[in-house]
Amino acid sequence: MRLPTPTLDPATLSPDRRTQISSIRQRYRSELYDRVLPFWMEHSIDRENGGYYNCLDRDGAVYDTTKHSWLQGRQVWMFSALYRTVEPRDEWLDIAQHGLKFLRDHALRPNGQVFFSLTADGRPIYQQRKIFSECFYVMALAEYARAADRPDLLKEAEEGLGRLWEWSSDLTKVGRPQHEGQADARSLAIPMILLNLIDVVAGENTSDYASSVDKLLERILLHVHADDKMVLESVAPDGSRLDGADGRVLNPGHAIEAGWFVQHWAQRLSRPDLQETARDIVRWSFDRGWDDEHGGIFYFLDADGYSPMQLEWFMKLWWPHCEALYAHLLNYALFGDEEDWQAFKTVDTYTFDHFSDPEHGEWFGYLDREGRVTHRFKGAAYKGCFHVPRTLWLCERLLGMLDASD
Amino acid sequence: MRLPTPTLDPATLSPDRRTQISSIRQRYRSELYDRVLPFWMEHSIDRENGGYYNCLDRDGAVYDTTKHSWLQGRQVWMFSALYRTVEPRDEWLDIAQHGLKFLRDHALRPNGQVFFSLTADGRPIYQQRKIFSECFYVMALAEYARAADRPDLLKEAEEGLGRLWEWSSDLTKVGRPQHEGQADARSLAIPMILLNLIDVVAGENTSDYASSVDKLLERILLHVHADDKMVLESVAPDGSRLDGADGRVLNPGHAIEAGWFVQHWAQRLSRPDLQETARDIVRWSFDRGWDDEHGGIFYFLDADGYSPMQLEWFMKLWWPHCEALYAHLLNYALFGDEEDWQAFKTVDTYTFDHFSDPEHGEWFGYLDREGRVTHRFKGAAYKGCFHVPRTLWLCERLLGMLDASD
Repeated sequence: MRLPTPTLDPATLSPDRRTQISSIRQRYRSELYDRVLPFWMEHSIDRENGGYYNCLDRDGAVYDTTKHSWLQGRQVWMFSALYRTVEPRDEWLDIAQHGLKFLRDHALRPNGQVFFSLTADGRPIYQQRKIFSECFYVMALAEYARAADRPDLLKEAEEGLGRLWEWSSDLTKVGRPQHEGQADARSLAIPMILLNLIDVVAGENTSDYASSVDKLLERILLHVHADDKMVLESVAPDGSRLDGADGRVLNPGHAIEAGWFVQHWAQRLSRPDLQETARDIVRWSFDRGWDDEHGGIFYFLDADGYSPMQLEWFMKLWWPHCEALYAHLLNYALFGDEEDWQAFKTVDTYTFDHFSDPEHGEWFGYLDREGRVTHRFKGAAYKGCFHVPRTLWLCERLLGMLDASD
Repeated sequence: MRLPTPTLDPATLSPDRRTQISSIRQRYRSELYDRVLPFWMEHSIDRENGGYYNCLDRDGAVYDTTKHSWLQGRQVWMFSALYRTVEPRDEWLDIAQHGLKFLRDHALRPNGQVFFSLTADGRPIYQQRKIFSECFYVMALAEYARAADRPDLLKEAEEGLGRLWEWSSDLTKVGRPQHEGQADARSLAIPMILLNLIDVVAGENTSDYASSVDKLLERILLHVHADDKMVLESVAPDGSRLDGADGRVLNPGHAIEAGWFVQHWAQRLSRPDLQETARDIVRWSFDRGWDDEHGGIFYFLDADGYSPMQLEWFMKLWWPHCEALYAHLLNYALFGDEEDWQAFKTVDTYTFDHFSDPEHGEWFGYLDREGRVTHRFKGAAYKGCFHVPRTLWLCERLLGMLDASD
């Protein structure tokens, strides 16, 4: 993943800001390399069966041996990306290869579908009628292919992406039946993940994907209701509001993630309007999502102020905070506005105070509204070696570009 | 639903206890007839399209027009049961008929499956690959058939029950694929709901179902691990513990509900051992499930003390408290032990302090661990006109049998 070049010139920063940037960068580096990556390297690798254990307790003990494909694929991607962008350590590539082999041996089906979960020894448990397991598999495949210099695997990833493009417009192809009363809804998740996937699969060679990228950016922008300063999770095909509670769902962390995904492309394509929209998506979603009373970003909100139907709406999850850290920092690096730096600092303080676990490494994933840890584990069906190392890796690199002490 | 006859003789109660019973009974009656039933009667009925709105805000306003079949069926059952057991009010039977017609016109499929959710005007949205929508439909059909004296509908309900019996042992028949790594797990929910369904469909005519009832009771008892004083939500076919987090899930409210379901049959079948087991199921599950720190019954727990994987495990939901009210009171009526009365009082105080809404009627459904209301609505995809009126109706009748002032 290529980071945009900051427009902020480190030489223009105040001495105090320079010191802050340098110190935060040091803290992120240490968090990533001393406390987060070692946690997964020591505890997740299943030397017996291949793949990674992802249900890890606070101290790294395996409390459930189920292997979830999303997290297998994401961990492969992460270690491949570290190998490519930070340092070509054999150990990292070996770990990536270890996970990819497990996915290819056990999770990948002949038709290109990927099982959602497997037993420790690779027997399939569950197949979702969605496309995300497949997306994370293709993401893993493409990044590993580049890291290991395997054009044959890259070609497979390109084919996988093509298949996902088709499936994404018609989920009956992965077994989800359609019923007459079902609203024709567009989910933010689909164009987001495909945009991210093109980034990974295309690498520098983006011209082949130019029209797809345009289409995906358009589809994401349908969710952005600028007049109301909000990003809706599901909209009608023309971007208008859907009836009922589904049409009112806000997922601030998800919107913030969409913001920086779009920003990366807006920079790459040199589109100033889109750059401003991407910045605003992050700001609006953070303003709406931040809990003024107790701090932290809500998981779900209702656009019209009804109670969200999700039971866990008020909880504070690690990943929206990860997305917000990088998104605010990126806004600051690109626009130089003090409000984005302050937003970054606010999230940074909350996150390191509440999620980070200096005792055993990695971060807790789930807090109640008041910020108390509700789940002691570090890995589960939807939390693995991904959001925390990704955000630390992205922020550390971006801070490096802003660090005048270098 | 026939209530067991108390063994506790009201004449032996202390004057103080008699006063308590009489006063609680009065409070339950008033809650049911003045604040709970009027809420649904005023706000849920869709006169235009038929059926009931079940997504109702705190004050009864419709905040989403989706109709969920579980709640349509349960409301039909509730009003039919009130008509049969309390008073043959035409209004109640009309409401039941109104919901049943909507289900039959729109939710019921030719193969006997029932859509999970529908638009306001009855177009199908979603079909679960489970059997619960079908169970609640058959429950509605049978109770209405008796209330309206419609043997033709009762026959249909009997056929539906037969079909559910088959499907329950092989969920591939409702479209759920099986994969090689999937544990052969037995869920407590299935024998529980079938046992309850036989109660409703069979009425007094239980002899036809004697061997089915025996099988279901056996299947429920597989979940009861008496040595550990716990009831596991999922077990292996021989009742032993399953590996991993799924095998450790405790759902105290569900186990407490199972306790009184089993108790009804244990009384009907005059099986003293089973009566004691049913009593203990309730006591053990309440002891484990009660939050000593903040009060209320946890939604989920892990049998070995790991963090449950469910995000909402620490929340306090209305329905486990409903089940506990009746289960403790039933234990007290049958065994006369003070500990069950005290448990009933503890839950009663917590419930009326936290869930009941004297301003708009009905109860709130969802609290955080500390007991604060997290969702202001009264109805949603899984909360409707069922648990609150059912428990008030059951408790009021049972308190009536214990009320020496009558």
